[in-house]
Amino acid sequence: MTTAEHDPDVSFDTAPERYRHWRLDLDGDVAYLRLDVDEAGGLVPGYELKMNSYDLGVDIELYDATQRLRFSHPQVRAVVITSAKDRNFCAGANIRMLAQSSHPWKVNFCKFTNETRNGMEDATAHSGQTYLAALNGTAAGGGYELALACDQILLIDDNSSTVALPEVPLLGVLPGTGGLTRVTDKRRVRKDRADVFATRSEGLRGRQAVEWKLVDEVIPKRAWDETVAERAAAAAARSNRPGSGARGVELPPLERTETADGISYRHVRATFDRSRGLVEITVFGPEGDVPDTVQRIHELGAAFWPLAMTRELDDLILRLRANELELGTWIIRTKGDVEDALAFERVIERFSATDWLVNEIRHYFKRVLKRLDVTSRSLIALIEPGSCFAGALLELAMACDRQYMLDGLMEDGDEEGEPAQVVLSDSNFGAFPMSNGLSRLASRFYGDDETVGKLRQETGRRISGADALELGLVTDAPDDIDWEDEVRIMLEERASLSPDALTGMEANHRFVGPETMESRIFSRLTAWQNWIFVRPNASGPDGALRRFGTGRRAEFDRRRV
Amino acid sequence: MTTAEHDPDVSFDTAPERYRHWRLDLDGDVAYLRLDVDEAGGLVPGYELKMNSYDLGVDIELYDATQRLRFSHPQVRAVVITSAKDRNFCAGANIRMLAQSSHPWKVNFCKFTNETRNGMEDATAHSGQTYLAALNGTAAGGGYELALACDQILLIDDNSSTVALPEVPLLGVLPGTGGLTRVTDKRRVRKDRADVFATRSEGLRGRQAVEWKLVDEVIPKRAWDETVAERAAAAAARSNRPGSGARGVELPPLERTETADGISYRHVRATFDRSRGLVEITVFGPEGDVPDTVQRIHELGAAFWPLAMTRELDDLILRLRANELELGTWIIRTKGDVEDALAFERVIERFSATDWLVNEIRHYFKRVLKRLDVTSRSLIALIEPGSCFAGALLELAMACDRQYMLDGLMEDGDEEGEPAQVVLSDSNFGAFPMSNGLSRLASRFYGDDETVGKLRQETGRRISGADALELGLVTDAPDDIDWEDEVRIMLEERASLSPDALTGMEANHRFVGPETMESRIFSRLTAWQNWIFVRPNASGPDGALRRFGTGRRAEFDRRRV
Repeated sequence: MTTAEHDPDVSFDTAPERYRHWRLDLDGDVAYLRLDVDEAGGLVPGYELKMNSYDLGVDIELYDATQRLRFSHPQVRAVVITSAKDRNFCAGANIRMLAQSSHPWKVNFCKFTNETRNGMEDATAHSGQTYLAALNGTAAGGGYELALACDQILLIDDNSSTVALPEVPLLGVLPGTGGLTRVTDKRRVRKDRADVFATRSEGLRGRQAVEWKLVDEVIPKRAWDETVAERAAAAAARSNRPGSGARGVELPPLERTETADGISYRHVRATFDRSRGLVEITVFGPEGDVPDTVQRIHELGAAFWPLAMTRELDDLILRLRANELELGTWIIRTKGDVEDALAFERVIERFSATDWLVNEIRHYFKRVLKRLDVTSRSLIALIEPGSCFAGALLELAMACDRQYMLDGLMEDGDEEGEPAQVVLSDSNFGAFPMSNGLSRLASRFYGDDETVGKLRQETGRRISGADALELGLVTDAPDDIDWEDEVRIMLEERASLSPDALTGMEANHRFVGPETMESRIFSRLTAWQNWIFVRPNASGPDGALRRFGTGRRAEFDRRRV
Repeated sequence: MTTAEHDPDVSFDTAPERYRHWRLDLDGDVAYLRLDVDEAGGLVPGYELKMNSYDLGVDIELYDATQRLRFSHPQVRAVVITSAKDRNFCAGANIRMLAQSSHPWKVNFCKFTNETRNGMEDATAHSGQTYLAALNGTAAGGGYELALACDQILLIDDNSSTVALPEVPLLGVLPGTGGLTRVTDKRRVRKDRADVFATRSEGLRGRQAVEWKLVDEVIPKRAWDETVAERAAAAAARSNRPGSGARGVELPPLERTETADGISYRHVRATFDRSRGLVEITVFGPEGDVPDTVQRIHELGAAFWPLAMTRELDDLILRLRANELELGTWIIRTKGDVEDALAFERVIERFSATDWLVNEIRHYFKRVLKRLDVTSRSLIALIEPGSCFAGALLELAMACDRQYMLDGLMEDGDEEGEPAQVVLSDSNFGAFPMSNGLSRLASRFYGDDETVGKLRQETGRRISGADALELGLVTDAPDDIDWEDEVRIMLEERASLSPDALTGMEANHRFVGPETMESRIFSRLTAWQNWIFVRPNASGPDGALRRFGTGRRAEFDRRRV
């Protein structure tokens, strides 16, 4: 099933001038993102990206574009995703790439593409930047799933272009990048029709595609450009983006130092401990001089600490997930001044409703936290003297599977000053919801509104280890006598457990209670897809994924499980 | 991974006098179900059922007991599940059984045990028959999961008995019979504590188990019997069951004829077509003489058509799922008089709120429909002349992935009389909810309340093929010229697809929109468990499940996926 023992390392760095597969064109308040895949530009050797099909490299560029559209182009109120190739929008994920990829690679690739598509919906919902899919040719598989992540789907009526989900009939896998879920839950396609559609490799077109709600509109070829522009203009007109006067923020390349033992950024540091199978992540809080005006925040731009830290953390999560599969436990710490962290906190709170940039930063931090939630690594927060788990940064701890807090000071330690403290702020009660729609505190105390209400009374207070334990904010709060042993044993135990069982367990515990379309994509859909990916019927030597394009039919174990 | 090429055939027939593993004792309005597993009584050779551990055979008896408690013992208002063995409640699913089982067997076993536990919760919620777990010894793994399905959990305080979910640390699999989900979603255990609990093989006991909400109460050994009886009496006193005056209905053995080509019952018939990989199921409607009094229904008892048909259908579903893995498509037909079907329909509607037996029948049919919903086979309804898809029976069609209805009559056919018709009744709008909490119509038209509202206006009308197509009740309605070819081609296409991809696709499409704790158990939890089951870290020769008890540690691929 695995062709390479070690998958190549992945970098997520890119910028529009370096894109090989996308063209980003701006036209007033409308941006056009044109897919123009370079066949020879695969991220990994062994396949050609024919028919505008994509691999992780193509999607890394798409993610970059969506981020820049939000931060660097405040005037953009509608984004049209279309193809630069005639009669072919996108054929989806490259099949040869999937067939040659290891299981972890496939799973990680699907997770990242899912996150990018969720981010597009997030931009539509929270940034006044509405995505439209202008399908100027056939959209198949992941190509149609990309369209499904848009707010509107327009299809050219040229008697040949279709929308299709051919994964089940051709490849023996699922349309796992949200396809099955969005067709029913977002597009509201009747489920028996969804069944027909997902088993018909040739897809649907024209009037029937509209009638089945698979697309919003079919547009004659002669009126195509004009109508797409009209629909984009109408979407832009409904937006609450600040408009043409605003100035965007450039996102310069991240400064990053990589060694064999870790990755360092300005505000985030990761140290690998390969023998123990873990990585120690430290997020550094802001240093001094907290800006208190929107003007100053805009002047700082990408150097404004919350944005800079979030970008670094985002990059780190993506790199660790893709490249460090055997570092199964992530220890998360913060370091800095609690007051400074809270000063930033207040800026975010004060301006996120009125300033587009502060709003973007809030939602970006929210999305990065969501990445943590679906990261298949054990996440452990260590809350020690000198940390600044306050407000937004406390969310990092709440995203973890467990929280350990030192009660008091280390007697022989180097730490000076005060014992560890955590501080709740208003932003812990809804500013950064999880994909299940709940705040991390509401998930933690699911069904126990009384406790959540009590915690609300505690905002602003510096909470000690003993009090945090009492309030249920931490899993344990050992004193200095027990701290080292307890943490060490806990980490050793964790490292001894089955990595797969941990992944499944964490994916269940982290998302309690209600599900949303987004959380369903990661639970019901992704979990089934991952199961199918490891089954011989898909990935075995005679499986559908491996046999595709060879002229030989797949041979199936016909037992239904 | 598979030790046997073909798993042994399973029968679900049993009765209290034949139980090898359970003792059912009645004490007024309280029943005691005592687990007393016969070590030598495994359903399959190769393992001993030590420590009150269970296999499918033990759970078949439990299911039988829960059904009889509902139908044969109307006076029972509380059911105490406990152990007949000292200091040992139940060690969960037998590990050697799991280790030697094929993947389909494990998955099917888990599904059935999940359904039985959901049925216990259904009895507590809808039959006034509250389940209490009286843990007179350690409840580990599936043993504790059985307790979680009860409304209250009482634990003996003997300084040794614990509750535990040791699956992750000991076996490298999940507590997949609802464990992870119920701990957080039902018991409302804080998720970081749930994480600690599910990784601590020795579990918790005493005060801490109460504080963490894992059990409701710990009871000193000396007061055990008395306190359990008190709690059961209190639960019984809160019940709305009819009380001691009511007479139960015996559930005699099903009359069933099995041949190489099928299974026949009085009201249900299944014909196998192994070459095409399908089974044709026909449910026969009631014949004549529809009782219109509660008295007559009680006199008929198990012979009353809705109950008789539901029992037969239940048995058929279970047998096909367990024994006929390669029959991947189930064609579902009905045959009978529409008026008769609706007459029964009205009886159910009139009396289910007031009569305990009619209420039981309604909820039983609901549970059997839910079994269909989670059955990993393609379900196709064929609606032909002479069928009686009306009201409750129409739910059978709505549970299918697709519905095909002949418009008009077959020109050369044997069928006399009227063309095929379907009839909506009030019971299609909520009497038989799916596990996502929605009716099948509301799921079908998810997000389209207007159409559901319109359909409500159509109740009682005989709807033709063309009209059913127009109303969205069927996927297609070919006329007699196209019927045979269209159905044949559709079935051939279905049979050619990857069985695994179909399972994943159907599991997504059937459950649209919201999730409940019950649906989450089958989606998030089960899908992850099935993934883990096929991974070498659990089921490979060096995996945790196979290595358990050998004295050798599992060897894990440490890559996190």
